[in-house]
Amino acid sequence: MSKKVLVLNSGSSSLKFKLFSLDHLHVVAKGVVEEIGSPSANIKFQGCHDHALQRHDIEIEDHLQALKAMSDLLTKCGLITNLSQLHGIGHRVVHGGESFTSPVSIDQEVLKKIEELIPLAPLHNPANILGIKIALDHAPDVPQVAVFDTAFHHTMPAHAHLYALPRHLYEELGIRRYGFHGTSYSYVTRKAAKYIRKPYSEFSCICLHLGNGASIVAVKNGKCLDTSMGLTPLEGLVMGTRCGDIDPAIILFMARNLGMSIDDIDHLLNRQSGLRGICGDRDMRTIEKRAARGDTDAQLALDIFCYRARKYIGAYLSITGQPDCIIFTGGIGENSSLVRQNICQDLKWLGLELDPLINDSLDKMEKGRPAEISTKSSKIKILVIPTDEELEIARQTIKVIGNEKGQG
Amino acid sequence: MSKKVLVLNSGSSSLKFKLFSLDHLHVVAKGVVEEIGSPSANIKFQGCHDHALQRHDIEIEDHLQALKAMSDLLTKCGLITNLSQLHGIGHRVVHGGESFTSPVSIDQEVLKKIEELIPLAPLHNPANILGIKIALDHAPDVPQVAVFDTAFHHTMPAHAHLYALPRHLYEELGIRRYGFHGTSYSYVTRKAAKYIRKPYSEFSCICLHLGNGASIVAVKNGKCLDTSMGLTPLEGLVMGTRCGDIDPAIILFMARNLGMSIDDIDHLLNRQSGLRGICGDRDMRTIEKRAARGDTDAQLALDIFCYRARKYIGAYLSITGQPDCIIFTGGIGENSSLVRQNICQDLKWLGLELDPLINDSLDKMEKGRPAEISTKSSKIKILVIPTDEELEIARQTIKVIGNEKGQG
Repeated sequence: MSKKVLVLNSGSSSLKFKLFSLDHLHVVAKGVVEEIGSPSANIKFQGCHDHALQRHDIEIEDHLQALKAMSDLLTKCGLITNLSQLHGIGHRVVHGGESFTSPVSIDQEVLKKIEELIPLAPLHNPANILGIKIALDHAPDVPQVAVFDTAFHHTMPAHAHLYALPRHLYEELGIRRYGFHGTSYSYVTRKAAKYIRKPYSEFSCICLHLGNGASIVAVKNGKCLDTSMGLTPLEGLVMGTRCGDIDPAIILFMARNLGMSIDDIDHLLNRQSGLRGICGDRDMRTIEKRAARGDTDAQLALDIFCYRARKYIGAYLSITGQPDCIIFTGGIGENSSLVRQNICQDLKWLGLELDPLINDSLDKMEKGRPAEISTKSSKIKILVIPTDEELEIARQTIKVIGNEKGQG
Repeated sequence: MSKKVLVLNSGSSSLKFKLFSLDHLHVVAKGVVEEIGSPSANIKFQGCHDHALQRHDIEIEDHLQALKAMSDLLTKCGLITNLSQLHGIGHRVVHGGESFTSPVSIDQEVLKKIEELIPLAPLHNPANILGIKIALDHAPDVPQVAVFDTAFHHTMPAHAHLYALPRHLYEELGIRRYGFHGTSYSYVTRKAAKYIRKPYSEFSCICLHLGNGASIVAVKNGKCLDTSMGLTPLEGLVMGTRCGDIDPAIILFMARNLGMSIDDIDHLLNRQSGLRGICGDRDMRTIEKRAARGDTDAQLALDIFCYRARKYIGAYLSITGQPDCIIFTGGIGENSSLVRQNICQDLKWLGLELDPLINDSLDKMEKGRPAEISTKSSKIKILVIPTDEELEIARQTIKVIGNEKGQG
């Protein structure tokens, strides 16, 4: 049986997993345990024999049971005999703060540091930690690696990562811009550099990760210069249910004039805003269909989403110098030709010209490979590159384990 | 005695005034009553005989006494016999909400509407209203006009003025982007269009008003497309003591982790942040001196200020198409060659090239006239145009009075 690497992404009531064979890093199984602790708990799994997705409704009270259910399925399919056999486990961790600028081998000290970062990511880090703890309990001898969403952005200079706030908020509490989606950016930007045949250290781009969460990054000479998400993933672009940039005084207004609590406001900004706030729907596919039928609210949601992304492209053009390319990735970035076209409109005079025919035809093409959707005369290329965060976590995990073994 | 127009800018503890002769609109007197209601109340006045600035420390308990003290000085100098003689009074009003898209003649209904907008500008509108009321009491027969800081921006399309928040916040409470500094933008952009000899309706520019408050506006074909200040003047660029753009979740973090009240947070974001928050000083002249001596905190404040402005220029380039010019105005914009140079650096590939020699020499030139600081080969001109908000208010006041009389 070939060696395998497991990638875990542990959420508050879910556990996503993907199993890679060490040979060519192809996926041998993947799935997700959902609604952990609820009566509708279930596991969706793909990897046995016929490779079809199967759904099993089973009682799963906590993350430990979720891990066991996953392990049982992987064993039953003959993919592993038990978790201890794995070459390694890679864990997605959302917030690495300033402590972690690259993936690290997990030990008690690392775990403690990730715990100390909980105030910066109160929703995400506790769930990530839970995933790490049960995996350590279950397979204590397997090397485990934490891969951070923030790490890609650690090269941002101070003038980009500091807010114009009293300095003690940064120095004592770590309030600064961190940025997220880093694993995706790491994967996609390297793939783009390879595609245009440029060494990564000389590669410059602006990359938009547009999914349920949405952000944008400016990369110059292979280093992150700036990104739209900040202390948390709330800042920046319009998202499915998150507001992105607003006048901060709006929060003061809501607290004073609407008697809303901090928790109410948090819920409103993170869950009831964004596309959903503007038009009631959070899914871009639904919104595009509504807009095509002439629904003005859906059209407005689409317009605001694209307009705000376009402004960020302009902002980052002012700091990168002429980049090699603009990259679209993420669920919306990869699949919505309409969104890509709206974002790129009127940018020809800045060197960005999308080819509408190629852009449209992409929807019907084979997915998974980089595609160039700019015209031949466009000074800056426009690329669509499918992201694969789990593959990037698997790669980084293997690399860290290799380095450790090399040193050991 | 020639006819005169008085411009009043009433703050919470101050009353600024400027008296214009109707002939060529030249200033015949100006001054400010400060610290109204405090033991250190005083009036600074310029306009008598030798035209030197004079300071008088006198007891001034409220805005009514401030207006009387001003009126007494104007009378003593023989500039007016009393306020009832004036051709008109123009009042600066900060927030016109969606009700006011142009200057209006003040009557009880208008006053009521301005009062209804207090929740949107709790600091500014009450003080502005106070100024209007005492002027109406004191000179009931003089035509009085309200000129709004927000009016210039009323052409912003919905995709620019709406936040990605639940729609009822806009529809029921008026939470949207309004923008400020409109009187300054109205004056400066018209002057720029004239300077480059283009009809205003065909004129496009990006204009930076950089003073204690700082904002930026995108104008296309003589209409505002977007601006950096939002519901309130807190959003956007870094300012003397205001933070500008931040991750809205930082407010939630401060409320939860630091036990700060909404008033505490308001004070921190509006009074303790911005340049002061980064380096302790709020005045750009002091900051430049400190940075020149190698002070790294001051250098960082300067860097963040300029970097954030540069990103907004880029953002607005993505929405205006190629503009005719970039304009600097306001205390910092008009007087700091260093800030202008830092903001424009690395933008040559986008068509913006500053001439460092002309830019530097401007500090020694006669102030008050438009100056062109771009190179001859710069595709987009860079201009410095001194603003004059009071003159613009005087002009708009005269125009409204003229229109009323024409109709009457």
